[in-house]
Amino acid sequence: MSPLPAPAVPRPPLRVALAGLGVVGGGVVRLLQANRELIARRAGRPVAIVAISARDRHKDRGVDLSPYRWEDDLGALVAAGDVDVVVEMIGGADGMALTLARQALGSGKALVTANKAMIAHHGLALARLAEERDTPLKYEAAVAGGIPVIKAIREGASANEIARVYGILNGTCNYILTRMERDGWGFAEALAAAQAEGYAEADPTFDVDGIDAAHKLSILAALCFGTKLDIGAVTVNGIRDIIAADIREAEALGHRVRLIGMAERDGGQGNGALYQHVQPCLVPADHPLAYVPGSLNAVVAEGNFVGRLFFEGAGAGAGPTASAIVADIIDIARDEYGPAFAMPVDALDEAPAADAGARVGKHYVRLVVEDRIGVLAEIATAMRDAGVSIESFIQRGTDDETGAVVIALVTHEGPARAIHAALATLAASDHVVGAPMHMPILAL
Amino acid sequence: MSPLPAPAVPRPPLRVALAGLGVVGGGVVRLLQANRELIARRAGRPVAIVAISARDRHKDRGVDLSPYRWEDDLGALVAAGDVDVVVEMIGGADGMALTLARQALGSGKALVTANKAMIAHHGLALARLAEERDTPLKYEAAVAGGIPVIKAIREGASANEIARVYGILNGTCNYILTRMERDGWGFAEALAAAQAEGYAEADPTFDVDGIDAAHKLSILAALCFGTKLDIGAVTVNGIRDIIAADIREAEALGHRVRLIGMAERDGGQGNGALYQHVQPCLVPADHPLAYVPGSLNAVVAEGNFVGRLFFEGAGAGAGPTASAIVADIIDIARDEYGPAFAMPVDALDEAPAADAGARVGKHYVRLVVEDRIGVLAEIATAMRDAGVSIESFIQRGTDDETGAVVIALVTHEGPARAIHAALATLAASDHVVGAPMHMPILAL
Repeated sequence: MSPLPAPAVPRPPLRVALAGLGVVGGGVVRLLQANRELIARRAGRPVAIVAISARDRHKDRGVDLSPYRWEDDLGALVAAGDVDVVVEMIGGADGMALTLARQALGSGKALVTANKAMIAHHGLALARLAEERDTPLKYEAAVAGGIPVIKAIREGASANEIARVYGILNGTCNYILTRMERDGWGFAEALAAAQAEGYAEADPTFDVDGIDAAHKLSILAALCFGTKLDIGAVTVNGIRDIIAADIREAEALGHRVRLIGMAERDGGQGNGALYQHVQPCLVPADHPLAYVPGSLNAVVAEGNFVGRLFFEGAGAGAGPTASAIVADIIDIARDEYGPAFAMPVDALDEAPAADAGARVGKHYVRLVVEDRIGVLAEIATAMRDAGVSIESFIQRGTDDETGAVVIALVTHEGPARAIHAALATLAASDHVVGAPMHMPILAL
Repeated sequence: MSPLPAPAVPRPPLRVALAGLGVVGGGVVRLLQANRELIARRAGRPVAIVAISARDRHKDRGVDLSPYRWEDDLGALVAAGDVDVVVEMIGGADGMALTLARQALGSGKALVTANKAMIAHHGLALARLAEERDTPLKYEAAVAGGIPVIKAIREGASANEIARVYGILNGTCNYILTRMERDGWGFAEALAAAQAEGYAEADPTFDVDGIDAAHKLSILAALCFGTKLDIGAVTVNGIRDIIAADIREAEALGHRVRLIGMAERDGGQGNGALYQHVQPCLVPADHPLAYVPGSLNAVVAEGNFVGRLFFEGAGAGAGPTASAIVADIIDIARDEYGPAFAMPVDALDEAPAADAGARVGKHYVRLVVEDRIGVLAEIATAMRDAGVSIESFIQRGTDDETGAVVIALVTHEGPARAIHAALATLAASDHVVGAPMHMPILAL
């Protein structure tokens, strides 16, 4: 019945091959070196790096790689007879990373990966391969970096039916939004600061357009709801269109703006469909997500018995990511693991995508309009005609430079579709400057 | 190598016996009934209650117990040939609970318990018994209720050397302190409210004197530091001596008062000793523990690679506790478990207790004094003579009713011993009313 190690017989080392030695790969080497004895005690056996492979053998990575066999060829790295676990840190949904993952699992080796794009796009196929070959596939580092949220949901909350899972899944966006909040900056200034600090790439698309968060959300959703991972079903809006006034007005309304990835069973509509959306939201000031600062990540899971669980920590970086990768390796060393998505792939449900337009909630709407007579009536009429009921309304004085006026309002509860209709009408108005902005308000 | 279930062959049900049907036991029955299908999918096999036992067979617990065999005798419950897992929900460090636990493990059955007192006092002996009989001992529900913090530390953070683990481990105290904060109440009023709301027992000693938190802290410390669990080494101060003025002055100084259980390697002294203390502390307003409301629990673990992890959720109650208990059962059903304290008992270190007096930090001190000339000089002299340096000082006007004056101050960093010496001097003064209060300020 039990995989407990017999204390008297020492178990052989778990032999690990590392593929990719960028920031994360270097962190894994450093961690396995620094905490070697501790890990052996906790794992019940040594964890030994035996082979490594990366693009450039001669680059100085600030760690001593001389004890490990270098392989130029990834195929040889995987095929080596002395390798039990392959750690994929190459990145990218396809290409070399996917080839390596397939080879490793296909040959019955354990695979540990931090690659959220690959898991989001190919996780089911890889999990099926792992099942066929009876070998572990683990990916704790793929979601929320160092926070052990895959484990917390797969195992810690496993007794619960989960109603919603949501959180701050991208540290770059959170850094940008909290700088806008703290410094009163616009998006461009805050993005430049994030780039200068190393929180954002030169091409920030993956982060600021919500794609990275969507990858992570799709993985969380599959785990929480026992559904087949479906990255194509995630609707994505990023944070590029948020202006300084949005942050200010949200604050005035008792909220903070956060990029939230949320998956909800039924989408509140009671039909079994799955709602998956990454978008900026207004988070009430008394919700713990409102206090997540800087580049941290945080995840909330709401279970039918446990209530609300909240997890916060570093979502990226060499140390936190290495922590999650090595935790997976230790689970494998302990023989404490099971199906990648908590149940066999064939047991996962197909969930239809919920109708996002039918989703009911309060919304924040912001318009920049010309300061002229009749504009207010135009807005009120468009809202009324679309069936949108207004709860509160803020209009500040005219901007000295542009002569434009910012109008922010919060609606009563209603379907998102009505907001979209009202804003489509207003976007066509000659008096509305630029695109109207709208964000749902996170329901407690 | 792998405990993965072969998908083609259905695994037999895991057969569970429940001992104790109080609030928690009723919650476990309800959970296993309500989420039965979901649990079978996630566990890879059904989880079936086969037998139950409690003091009073005829009490109405609001759940249908008719499908289960009733055993009047706990020994018979454990000995039954159709029981794989015994769930202990009787409570108490010794007595029937301990007898049951020993019988279950001794006969090679799995034991799941929510009993923090029993684990704190007998956890090592029980873990040793579990090892000898090669059977699981699990206790997720014993610490922080529904938050899967045992798993998060044992497995999620397993790659890290932990520097400190600390948190809000008692929901009753947190409820009392947050009511004092919100309503300006004294301790007695807030305790009465907690009792009226069902958050505190008629005899609140275990909660408000910090004993319950100490049990939980000792368990966390053993897991984080790989040390032999030692409840006797935990120093405990409760929250009875906190007055409304403490909450008010803490707030004025940018802090909130929380009962914190903290274990720290070296106690900051670099000598390998272990510091374990439950006491009220001033938490800086920008620390996430400052925002933990009402009866929630929260735990922080600081790892050398992952940085700060923060976990929050319900620390008690039928649903959250049942969630943790059933998560343990599912781990057993999946064959995903190992040594109770992450490594065999013999591999755990003996850690000497740190000298708490040598621990360096800032402190909050509050004195109630008579409003007369020379008192301030007396305080300043006592502090100076003990080597305590004062950073800030608040004295409010005289209380109309009592004629007394509240003085609150914050010290510069220094050893706790110096504070104790200064306060011993001042406690003997004729001009100081009642016992002086001091609380450490949580270092970030």
